[in-house]
Amino acid sequence: MSNLYTLENEVFSALIFYGTLVLIKTLLMAIWTSYYRTKHLSVWSREDAVMFAPNDPAKQKAMMAASHPQVERVRRAHLNDLENVVPFVVMALLYVGINPAAATALWHFRIFFAARVLHSLIYVNSVPQPFRGVAFLTGLAVTMSMAYQMIRAVY
Amino acid sequence: MSNLYTLENEVFSALIFYGTLVLIKTLLMAIWTSYYRTKHLSVWSREDAVMFAPNDPAKQKAMMAASHPQVERVRRAHLNDLENVVPFVVMALLYVGINPAAATALWHFRIFFAARVLHSLIYVNSVPQPFRGVAFLTGLAVTMSMAYQMIRAVY
Amino acid sequence: MSNLYTLENEVFSALIFYGTLVLIKTLLMAIWTSYYRTKHLSVWSREDAVMFAPNDPAKQKAMMAASHPQVERVRRAHLNDLENVVPFVVMALLYVGINPAAATALWHFRIFFAARVLHSLIYVNSVPQPFRGVAFLTGLAVTMSMAYQMIRAVY
Repeated sequence: MSNLYTLENEVFSALIFYGTLVLIKTLLMAIWTSYYRTKHLSVWSREDAVMFAPNDPAKQKAMMAASHPQVERVRRAHLNDLENVVPFVVMALLYVGINPAAATALWHFRIFFAARVLHSLIYVNSVPQPFRGVAFLTGLAVTMSMAYQMIRAVY
Repeated sequence: MSNLYTLENEVFSALIFYGTLVLIKTLLMAIWTSYYRTKHLSVWSREDAVMFAPNDPAKQKAMMAASHPQVERVRRAHLNDLENVVPFVVMALLYVGINPAAATALWHFRIFFAARVLHSLIYVNSVPQPFRGVAFLTGLAVTMSMAYQMIRAVY
Repeated sequence: MSNLYTLENEVFSALIFYGTLVLIKTLLMAIWTSYYRTKHLSVWSREDAVMFAPNDPAKQKAMMAASHPQVERVRRAHLNDLENVVPFVVMALLYVGINPAAATALWHFRIFFAARVLHSLIYVNSVPQPFRGVAFLTGLAVTMSMAYQMIRAVY
């Protein structure tokens, strides 16, 4: 079988595009968390409180006292990405190896990317259910579909 | 050197099988968490509490008051998978590239998979130590063995 | 295009080296956490408390009462690795596929590895800011640089 892990393979080159985008999206959750930490003056580590309020021990203590609900919310969205996005991209790397039809593979990558962007926006902005659930399950269904195709291909 | 990332390579095709299975196992921890959240009526986000108890603010508040120990337990098992399973599969993808003996590689994949399934069952069901520790260290030892072979192959 | 995922490709073989090292570094955070859990007698699960203090229910309760700040600190460093190191290695696997110049790729891998080792040492030892921030942003910048090259290569 010829080499599938090359830019000439449309599926691999689409994975480089969508895999990179969705992982960058995941990394940016850390920046979004920092934004809310700064806005709500809520940090975890003494050295961070000292940086924000160098000569004000009372303020430092207040900053570390309790986590702000909005900070916790964006952190949960970030953790949900670690639980779902990273396994997806790793599985997609294996998926390239079973040589799926390009159109099938590309729709998997696109739908997953859209579902996860929506998931984060919905979560961080407290959009009522069932929207977040639907975005989560859409991403999971795409991952399960790739898994099913892979198990069938090698079993 | 010929291409190793092809279904004709027994090691790669075994990684597609075991890598997919162990990542699916990791994804399913989220479903298991949802099961215990529903059973013990314990959620994090207001929109989830509203979905469960639409017209009952008191119940909504109770659901968000404190995390249930069993929910925390399954979440710790999930986090432990993120810490161990995802790095394992990523390293296994690199491991294919040093062209290990097929029998060696397959036993690494099988033992890791079994150790991690046991780890989750032991953790979530509160089985006394040292069982969870043994399952954890077995998975870690398999990962370290792959790492050792890779460092030796390229250094 | 010839096969890039082979030991004869200097970039891939460097990724096997640095990718393995930086993932092992991440796995070792769990051992470091265990060290502080043992030192400060602070655990999460009843079965762990029972193992440490088999016939002393009062001590078991004390061990599970509240998390020790130093344990939480090393855990945050570990979580930060999951957020940054794992996506980096996955993206680096894709990065090999765009056939980057070897010197460029190797410096990306080396700087990322050094930045993340420093990040953990700085975090766990409570070194004042801005050191941890600089280490974090250095790792992120290296990852973003790879992402930029990949998007340019396939878009």
